Amino acid sequence: MNQYNQYEKAQPGHFYAIGVGPGSPDLLTFRAAALIRSADVIIAPRSRKADKSLALETVQELINGQEVIDHVYAMTRDVERTMQLWTQVADLAGERCRAAKSVVQITLGDPLIYSTSCYLLSLVRETLADECVHVVPGISAFQAAASLFDQPLTIQEDSMTLMPATDMARVEAALDHCETLVLYKAGRKINEIADLLERRGLADRARLVCYAEQGSKQFVSDDLRAAAKTHHGYMTTVLVYVGRRTWADNE
Amino acid sequence: MNQYNQYEKAQPGHFYAIGVGPGSPDLLTFRAAALIRSADVIIAPRSRKADKSLALETVQELINGQEVIDHVYAMTRDVERTMQLWTQVADLAGERCRAAKSVVQITLGDPLIYSTSCYLLSLVRETLADECVHVVPGISAFQAAASLFDQPLTIQEDSMTLMPATDMARVEAALDHCETLVLYKAGRKINEIADLLERRGLADRARLVCYAEQGSKQFVSDDLRAAAKTHHGYMTTVLVYVGRRTWADNE
Repeated sequence: MNQYNQYEKAQPGHFYAIGVGPGSPDLLTFRAAALIRSADVIIAPRSRKADKSLALETVQELINGQEVIDHVYAMTRDVERTMQLWTQVADLAGERCRAAKSVVQITLGDPLIYSTSCYLLSLVRETLADECVHVVPGISAFQAAASLFDQPLTIQEDSMTLMPATDMARVEAALDHCETLVLYKAGRKINEIADLLERRGLADRARLVCYAEQGSKQFVSDDLRAAAKTHHGYMTTVLVYVGRRTWADNE
Repeated sequence: MNQYNQYEKAQPGHFYAIGVGPGSPDLLTFRAAALIRSADVIIAPRSRKADKSLALETVQELINGQEVIDHVYAMTRDVERTMQLWTQVADLAGERCRAAKSVVQITLGDPLIYSTSCYLLSLVRETLADECVHVVPGISAFQAAASLFDQPLTIQEDSMTLMPATDMARVEAALDHCETLVLYKAGRKINEIADLLERRGLADRARLVCYAEQGSKQFVSDDLRAAAKTHHGYMTTVLVYVGRRTWADNE
């Protein structure tokens, strides 16, 4: 496995929040792979509902003796409880770093886009020096989802908005302010999104992707109503190609 | 170089629009690298102003006998002229594909985010079968830029908007509708952006990054006024951390 030798290795006492991409191992970057492979400790969060960490599965081939902390966390929308949970993990990470170990936290997608890494990063930064904390970007699910279709996300003067599909009033407002709207965590709101898009005459401009780049679990549809009957996963992305804004629109 | 053997190779008669990330070779994905290395033809666009293709430089280590089409294009905001230019390249690509060659177009960042790939993709799709046209996502500059700072792009209920910094009225409107605003192509508007952010009390929430992950060219600043004096590059990204929208805001 000397193919990683040319790339930067994880340094003793350093912490890395690493995006491993949407789930397919070949969508990892070389930087992510080299750091994970050379780390002493890998923190792999998984929700209480999941029987295994998808991020850990994605990097399985890179595991060769590192300590793996398979941290189980509750999916809660309680900020205080969330920070309590992550404080325990941050303590583990800080301990290892102070013992001159290198620690990586792996996360699906990109560590700065709706990721649990954000909690851990903010806590780890309280105890480690700035130059010892690093973020490695990863391919986010919306990029993987968009690559399945024949539409640009943005071109020329377009803007794109990315948001969770929770507050439907905000989702509707967003339609007025962007050319491409990306909705994350859309699984529970597919029918409400379909209602909105039908009302706005945009039903044929939406695409739904569940589990983008997660092998046979990947599901793609341009019919939200039909998809709502069978697909309700947490990892559901809806892309709405609202319109285009060309250079000419700006003159 | 057998490290790529386990990954998918470029197929005869197929066209791939491939994002090579922001510029650092280690931010390429394994998928991108394996396809580029195994392709018969590499199309590497560069603007007339550039003396070499940055995308081509990024993948230099993967070049081993492929035909390289180093296509020079004019940076114009004329839609018709742009499509004419890309029609020539699409013809070259189509010709090679019909001769059972595999063709990749490499592009900095992600092929679906403000990329010349979008033009070529739309033209190539007119002549090739759907299943012969592929998009491989790449790390976009905003992800590389954000990874240099200690702030999430989005967390909990946040939304993020990505747009070019051309129409300042639209930029101002966007501040009201998102928690993180990402401005691309900001080089010529740094002072206008600084004016706007000062007026809105957001001056200390902005970060500027030029040439993120392009080696020694990378420049980072939290002082837009100072940066405006010396940095005007096309590849200038401004991140504005407008605010946060937590779970509690949505109850």
